[in-house]
Amino acid sequence: MKTKFILTLCVALLSSGILSAADKKAAGEQAVREADEQWSKAAAGKDLDKTVSFYADDAIVLPPNQPMATSKDGIRNLWKGLLDSVTDISWKTTRVEVAKSGDMACLIGTYELTMKDGAKDKGKYCEVWEKQADGKWKVGTDMFNSDLPLPAASPAAAEKK
Amino acid sequence: MKTKFILTLCVALLSSGILSAADKKAAGEQAVREADEQWSKAAAGKDLDKTVSFYADDAIVLPPNQPMATSKDGIRNLWKGLLDSVTDISWKTTRVEVAKSGDMACLIGTYELTMKDGAKDKGKYCEVWEKQADGKWKVGTDMFNSDLPLPAASPAAAEKK
Repeated sequence: MKTKFILTLCVALLSSGILSAADKKAAGEQAVREADEQWSKAAAGKDLDKTVSFYADDAIVLPPNQPMATSKDGIRNLWKGLLDSVTDISWKTTRVEVAKSGDMACLIGTYELTMKDGAKDKGKYCEVWEKQADGKWKVGTDMFNSDLPLPAASPAAAEKK
Repeated sequence: MKTKFILTLCVALLSSGILSAADKKAAGEQAVREADEQWSKAAAGKDLDKTVSFYADDAIVLPPNQPMATSKDGIRNLWKGLLDSVTDISWKTTRVEVAKSGDMACLIGTYELTMKDGAKDKGKYCEVWEKQADGKWKVGTDMFNSDLPLPAASPAAAEKK
């Protein structure tokens, strides 16, 4: 009778542990999907303060064709330049993977934007979100690049080689 | 006496849980740093089979100026094209962040390569490694882009707009 009780207790404890990991992943996925949607809306609304507020204090942003931005000022300048040069920008996440502990999530998705000169760009991104000590999710790593082929180098540029 | 014993037990259990999370993170960081070094060596040695063996079955690679590769064939073709066009390639990880559960890690670093025509490129990457069911770490998401500015568009390309 005692053995049966201990076994039942063990199974219950193990089950709760397994469920808890699945719950953490599901809760994490829902939280980052919602936060990412809010982030895209903040950028679409050209709200610079709100847009950069989604980054963690130690965030790194890795944009194409320039060095990575590793400081708050660097990230803000990057976004200021971007929001100033586009008429519209939006993105949508297509895959989310969450760590078992529910404190780290990797999001992949696609973006579209139109520059003020009418040029359109589309591409993709990888965002790594991290759950902070206060329970809020923030972006620790943000990388993006274009799907469009490189422009052909001008003859002048080619001559410089 | 009984209360003191239960309290001591609780503290011991909690401490072992906290240490365990730190241990998982440290072990994860060491494992992915070593695996990433081996990966860079495989690419430097132009070993295509070994290079692509570092990816998880459901890996996604997000290269600049072309769409993301979401299949094993797509990823292999991407690497074949890359290894065929360079004389040397290497990369070095500069930051590693690991989930508390020790099953997901985000690596940031920088790469350098020289094309067969002598052109040099340098840039950065974000790799998200995931611990598989068999305990091996594999790359689930791999993104990179150049630090170099875009080549100036040729007059012919500009006229097409």
